[in-house]
Amino acid sequence: MTMLLDYQNRRLRFGLDGKVCLAEFVSAREEPCYLYDLRHFTQRYRHFQETFADLPHMIHYAVKANAHPTFLRRVVELGGGADVVSGGELQRALEAGVPPERIIFSGVGKSHAELRLAISLGIKQINIESVGELRRIIALAETLDRPARVAFRFNPSVDAETHPYIATGFRSHKFGIDAEAVMACLALAAEARQWVRIVGISLHIGSQILDVGNFAEALRNTRPLAAALREQGFPLSTLDVGGGFGIHYDTGDESRELTNFAHYTEVIRQGTQGLADEILFEPGRFLVARCGVLLARVEYVKTTPYKTFVIVNTGMHHLIRPALYQARHRILPVVLHSERVSRVDVVGPLCESSDFLAQDIELPEVHEGDWLAIADAGAYARSMASEYNLHPFPDEQFIA
Amino acid sequence: MTMLLDYQNRRLRFGLDGKVCLAEFVSAREEPCYLYDLRHFTQRYRHFQETFADLPHMIHYAVKANAHPTFLRRVVELGGGADVVSGGELQRALEAGVPPERIIFSGVGKSHAELRLAISLGIKQINIESVGELRRIIALAETLDRPARVAFRFNPSVDAETHPYIATGFRSHKFGIDAEAVMACLALAAEARQWVRIVGISLHIGSQILDVGNFAEALRNTRPLAAALREQGFPLSTLDVGGGFGIHYDTGDESRELTNFAHYTEVIRQGTQGLADEILFEPGRFLVARCGVLLARVEYVKTTPYKTFVIVNTGMHHLIRPALYQARHRILPVVLHSERVSRVDVVGPLCESSDFLAQDIELPEVHEGDWLAIADAGAYARSMASEYNLHPFPDEQFIA
Repeated sequence: MTMLLDYQNRRLRFGLDGKVCLAEFVSAREEPCYLYDLRHFTQRYRHFQETFADLPHMIHYAVKANAHPTFLRRVVELGGGADVVSGGELQRALEAGVPPERIIFSGVGKSHAELRLAISLGIKQINIESVGELRRIIALAETLDRPARVAFRFNPSVDAETHPYIATGFRSHKFGIDAEAVMACLALAAEARQWVRIVGISLHIGSQILDVGNFAEALRNTRPLAAALREQGFPLSTLDVGGGFGIHYDTGDESRELTNFAHYTEVIRQGTQGLADEILFEPGRFLVARCGVLLARVEYVKTTPYKTFVIVNTGMHHLIRPALYQARHRILPVVLHSERVSRVDVVGPLCESSDFLAQDIELPEVHEGDWLAIADAGAYARSMASEYNLHPFPDEQFIA
Repeated sequence: MTMLLDYQNRRLRFGLDGKVCLAEFVSAREEPCYLYDLRHFTQRYRHFQETFADLPHMIHYAVKANAHPTFLRRVVELGGGADVVSGGELQRALEAGVPPERIIFSGVGKSHAELRLAISLGIKQINIESVGELRRIIALAETLDRPARVAFRFNPSVDAETHPYIATGFRSHKFGIDAEAVMACLALAAEARQWVRIVGISLHIGSQILDVGNFAEALRNTRPLAAALREQGFPLSTLDVGGGFGIHYDTGDESRELTNFAHYTEVIRQGTQGLADEILFEPGRFLVARCGVLLARVEYVKTTPYKTFVIVNTGMHHLIRPALYQARHRILPVVLHSERVSRVDVVGPLCESSDFLAQDIELPEVHEGDWLAIADAGAYARSMASEYNLHPFPDEQFIA
């Protein structure tokens, strides 16, 4: 794989094979824009699929990362399914053509209306996150006269090394249930066998995890539970290993994360051996983060005695990750004027100091009217966007 | 003034005179909802207005706090104007009937299109934030053959005691210009007198400021600049003292902040004496925060060996202040079952650990299906909301 963002004659090109000259792309634009290379998304998906070709598995794309229908339709074409976390995402997946039997429903707060929809559609599995949720599902399945397939979202008590806001698999998190609660659920399920079928265990220890040892630990911690379930007459049909595999935002060179991905696949292979008939994956960021850039125009370069601010026409309303998770996205000028770099903050137009895209970074010389590409904005950018300060949502364009 | 949220026979009532029984209000609802008491908003506005009755002034409501047209129309009826920070807010204000001559335009990143609109409408004043912006305004005014009225957004170098994300008046912030840059602007303006009229100075040191001493300091630091402007033949027609006056989120008793407001008015009176013909205010939170509640249903009460989670059907997508600024909003059950309280996290349905409304708080006993009122959600709640995880935006209802 190549660099998705690379200069050719000082002009930044984006996409596989340097498909699009960004200076040309933005030439008639005024407003910020997300640009996605669907071919790169496809390539990543296929890489994932092929790596696990010998393992009975299913890829359920995590819709929350980027819910644009184009991505969902492509997943369907590639034979994949969807991991949804709300009724809205479930509807979106259906509209894009994802068959219900390829949909997994996760999340701690599923409402009656959401579960009713999922059960009546007969989706592949509902990953339950509490005893209360299982009770609700049993009652609804009985009312609807339609049995539901459920998996236990197990909290493996792994302290994943990621930002605390996106770590989800530690015992003090709201997510998942522990082995004791699983046993309580089993008792409930045993009494309602006609309404609920236990199909598996699901794990999701967080997002943007780079240390594959965290996944290994989660799987090790899951093995005794799987054995206990088997003993009680609930062999695992599926083991949902979740998503959360991270990318290296600090570089455009994808080789490091692909090497790391190879380690990840080994960890999954070994860690899941003999545990279930089918392994389910919920990748989001790994598939879609890299394939997007957020393009922004420089409105002002403001030099003060204390700092230089590059003020652009996008900000935390279109990419909240820097403000919320102190995330760092690479920022590259669409045209390189010179070798000169200076130390700047790249900030947005919103009226608060949290509205920054990067703080204290080295940026090549830019001027008013220049454009910048904010890298790796395919995941958790548009999906978390707001219209704060009444700025409209940016356009979304595809390279196909 | 009374408590806007108070129990009567263990049932929570909301609004002036305890107008609405929230248990009744939510009885036919399933989804979260913002409920606003327009009468309280009006009361606050009038209180503001009357307090400054003897001072030539204008209240420019900060649209970014809550851009619902109902609030804007009420401001117009009350004789006020708008403080806008984008083309979208400018359009919204116009649509609500705010006359251009009562609109102020602030913000660091005003685009050509936004400034073109503002200049051609002949709005009251544009608060400029950089020399580059003044240059842009002069060029546009000339093209449009329409002079523009501008004020300098002065950065008074006050380290306001608020969350760093909403402090805006320190020298290292992106906002405003220092005295030296004002002088550079004056030179520019002097050469383009037919296109730009310097009308005043604007200040805005941040948001949610409780120590009125910060405002006093900002005004003290402004006095030499005002004098310098006067000497150079630019007496101040307006002095825009901004907004930023904070509320006491920790209590429902408004008397503390009204006492503090009285101190604030004294600070403003003394600090602005003799400086300008008209004092402009940009209140947002002080007018609108208190008058709103966000109502949420308890989906699950999840007890783990480590924590109890009250999982509701709203979260950081509808109120991001706790996740982004570690803000604390009071949370009250709509019906009080007992005197028992327990220590809980109140969390939302989103798939990340940042999705909390309160952490480690004492909450009276609640059960699945109960409703909670999240207090003081009139400001920076709906305006910062997203559809993350594809949850729809909550409904907005008014008590009028």
